[in-house]
Amino acid sequence: MSSHQKISYQGEPGAFSEQAAKAYFGNTCDVVARETFNEIFEDVERRRSAFAIVPIENSLHGSVHQNFDLLWKHRVHIVGEVKLRIKMNLLALPGVRIKDLRAVYSHPQALGQCDKFLRSLKNVSVNPFYDTAGAAKMIAVERRRDAAAIASLQAAADYGLKVLRPGIESDHRNFTRFLVIGKKQVRPKRNAKTSLIFTTKNIPGALFKCLSVFALRNINLLKIESRPIVGAPWEYLFYLDIEGDAREKECINALNHLQELTAYFKNLGSYESGKIVTPH
Amino acid sequence: MSSHQKISYQGEPGAFSEQAAKAYFGNTCDVVARETFNEIFEDVERRRSAFAIVPIENSLHGSVHQNFDLLWKHRVHIVGEVKLRIKMNLLALPGVRIKDLRAVYSHPQALGQCDKFLRSLKNVSVNPFYDTAGAAKMIAVERRRDAAAIASLQAAADYGLKVLRPGIESDHRNFTRFLVIGKKQVRPKRNAKTSLIFTTKNIPGALFKCLSVFALRNINLLKIESRPIVGAPWEYLFYLDIEGDAREKECINALNHLQELTAYFKNLGSYESGKIVTPH
Repeated sequence: MSSHQKISYQGEPGAFSEQAAKAYFGNTCDVVARETFNEIFEDVERRRSAFAIVPIENSLHGSVHQNFDLLWKHRVHIVGEVKLRIKMNLLALPGVRIKDLRAVYSHPQALGQCDKFLRSLKNVSVNPFYDTAGAAKMIAVERRRDAAAIASLQAAADYGLKVLRPGIESDHRNFTRFLVIGKKQVRPKRNAKTSLIFTTKNIPGALFKCLSVFALRNINLLKIESRPIVGAPWEYLFYLDIEGDAREKECINALNHLQELTAYFKNLGSYESGKIVTPH
Repeated sequence: MSSHQKISYQGEPGAFSEQAAKAYFGNTCDVVARETFNEIFEDVERRRSAFAIVPIENSLHGSVHQNFDLLWKHRVHIVGEVKLRIKMNLLALPGVRIKDLRAVYSHPQALGQCDKFLRSLKNVSVNPFYDTAGAAKMIAVERRRDAAAIASLQAAADYGLKVLRPGIESDHRNFTRFLVIGKKQVRPKRNAKTSLIFTTKNIPGALFKCLSVFALRNINLLKIESRPIVGAPWEYLFYLDIEGDAREKECINALNHLQELTAYFKNLGSYESGKIVTPH
């Protein structure tokens, strides 16, 4: 990718999304920080940025459901994937000790990933914040000596905080899978996967029949996720990741077959399965 | 149910969970307010309460994933279900106007359900709070004239707040499905459904094969949900709701068949499908 293309991410500088962008596009890539996920999807849709980097799933805490909804709403494609090793750290102002703490701030996903550690703290309130790096910034700017943030080492460096306790995630096999979204579809060279959205027709065994189009062709199912349909209580949109490129013969047949069974269908794109990267 | 049995719920008095408990057990039932979901599961497991009422899914915002994880961890059963019509209201101190607001507080689920309305407010920060009724209580106790809470009419009445704007949910077909959990399994009399948890064996087309045990017997699948397995990145626990009672012949056969294909299996119980109730 050329270095002058802008890459949008959600959060403050020091956010895990920024690390994922640099891991995927290289350290000198031109990143744009935005406040909300909706804005980074709009950046790509309106061509203000070439790409955006979107956290979609954490291996401890689960899916980032809001971003499944945004993939459905926006006219963008998935063009790549990266799996970032996540290390969560308790950060505070220099001199502050664990026993001084009355509050911990971080993004709800990060709080969820550090659940075990947080339950070991006594008389400390756990407070959701819009962003991990944003929580670190707030502690630094407001000179809070009674509070800590959970964020990356990069955020500690960026905002002059000390690491009170490193690696506080509940399990160290902690990865966040990010999607790279762009305006145009790409052609993956190797290890292709394809993401789809669909709703089933109102027929008996509908979901089973939809999955059969892949099973009958030995196409591996990598992930299934369901999201509620607004205005239709207890009906669902399904998100599917399958192995393979939607331009291959077997895959074309499966997706044609699938569309005989679905009321709504959207191909989010084929892309190369992401490698695991560890930030420095 | 006899009225002296305790029913645990998460939240402050005025919470939607309390309304659901009263809709299910009657207005005079003996409710116990707890701070966390984990505590209400423990109340049932250790027989401090006969039952607990657990929000599991909202028709606009999706599943309450933490409670799927707790159903897996605790030795409890699902014994009932109730679907509560949810009306979200913007609450503030008497005399406060919308243009005075600089902040809105509520539970992240409630904020998600009022997404459209919140985006229409200018220069107002949106702040996650541990509980809807807790946010209302905080506004009242701290006499905040620059902030509002999103909560139930019951919470407005309980904490002396005024309804600045009623019914601000993004879509009025807004229901939350609550599960009633107890220590012992029950025998549903009509409209039975059964909830299951399983992990698939590491075989090709594993999930497809698991769903086939129901499709082959014309047993309807009502919901599927996947949750990450801690320590095994990109592997999932599946939660399934099916139609029928696990004690019926067809269902017994399907569940025996399922266990030939699963690495882990747990029957959460059979119960009567919940009715829709509207709080006064």
